[in-house]
Amino acid sequence: MSQPKSLNIHWHGANVTTEEREGALGQRGCVVWLTGLSASGKSTIARRVEQLLLERQTHTYVLDGDNLRMGLNKDLGFSPADRTENIRRVGSVAQLFADAGSIVLTAFISPYRADRDGARAMVPAGRFLEVHVATDIATCEQRDPKGLYVKAREGKIPEFTGISAPYEAPESPELVLRTEGKTVEESAMELVNFLESRGFLTA
Amino acid sequence: MSQPKSLNIHWHGANVTTEEREGALGQRGCVVWLTGLSASGKSTIARRVEQLLLERQTHTYVLDGDNLRMGLNKDLGFSPADRTENIRRVGSVAQLFADAGSIVLTAFISPYRADRDGARAMVPAGRFLEVHVATDIATCEQRDPKGLYVKAREGKIPEFTGISAPYEAPESPELVLRTEGKTVEESAMELVNFLESRGFLTA
Repeated sequence: MSQPKSLNIHWHGANVTTEEREGALGQRGCVVWLTGLSASGKSTIARRVEQLLLERQTHTYVLDGDNLRMGLNKDLGFSPADRTENIRRVGSVAQLFADAGSIVLTAFISPYRADRDGARAMVPAGRFLEVHVATDIATCEQRDPKGLYVKAREGKIPEFTGISAPYEAPESPELVLRTEGKTVEESAMELVNFLESRGFLTA
Repeated sequence: MSQPKSLNIHWHGANVTTEEREGALGQRGCVVWLTGLSASGKSTIARRVEQLLLERQTHTYVLDGDNLRMGLNKDLGFSPADRTENIRRVGSVAQLFADAGSIVLTAFISPYRADRDGARAMVPAGRFLEVHVATDIATCEQRDPKGLYVKAREGKIPEFTGISAPYEAPESPELVLRTEGKTVEESAMELVNFLESRGFLTA
């Protein structure tokens, strides 16, 4: 960019650096990317972690279908191209929140490795924490809070992840959460402790 | 949504309410929507306000071309449809930040009234503050830090707002900033004082 004319030099503003922002807010931003089957517990864990972090006055936010499907991504359906675009936008928004110094948790099935890697590539190294909510499909199917597995088994939902569409499990996620036989509280605390161990929370 | 089976009732999480979040963080989220001609000072004022709010430990963020054009909106060009989609996405992301309790400042020309009203409609009443950076076009053209007005006058940039494309000024913005003859600091403080008067900042 060219320099402004000297008369207007005072109209050339500098951006706040990540370090300045984090120093002022007293926290480091990051993306906590939860991936796993439908009903594996992603949103529920994310929402509980959100509460726990807020109790510590940590700025945090959850991105999931609840707040994106009706807004930013309301123009997207479930075709492969739309699914990829969905995750691209989620990754872009997560990057903005992390850049703002927030701990942002995303809770999307995000079944494709390439899409998740694309989201990882948007943020600085060490700021993307892939969390595999590795609940086995039998447990997910037993929970089935929205009756989706029943419908998928009946063929009423085409391309349902784990039934009629693939789930590409992470190969080297930063954390694996196994939720079978555990309470939400236990899984949420596991994630909070992990964030603490990585230096994203002050004790 | 149907209820989960009783066995898995503990996998049904509740969302944090806006009130709980704001109580924990000690601040109220809002969208500060700056609109005005190219080189009117939108981004520069927004960036300085961001610094001033961070000095007060207020969680804040600026959305502008710098951080959206390369990411979320990199698939969009400058056709009328793309411009509208651009502002729709900016509005959606701003809504998420406000919902997260942040004071988010957006700095886009956003020349169309309907697009700005669409962004306003996404957030709760009283949380959308339209700020008209009402620098006259002669001053903008004199500043012209990127040489865009020169190119537009030469016909090298088609549909340039104020020259060859319309700017629909806000009819009842929450605030009008006149920047002619003022420093960035004066305009930024005017906006900070306004946010204080509306109860978005503790004194």
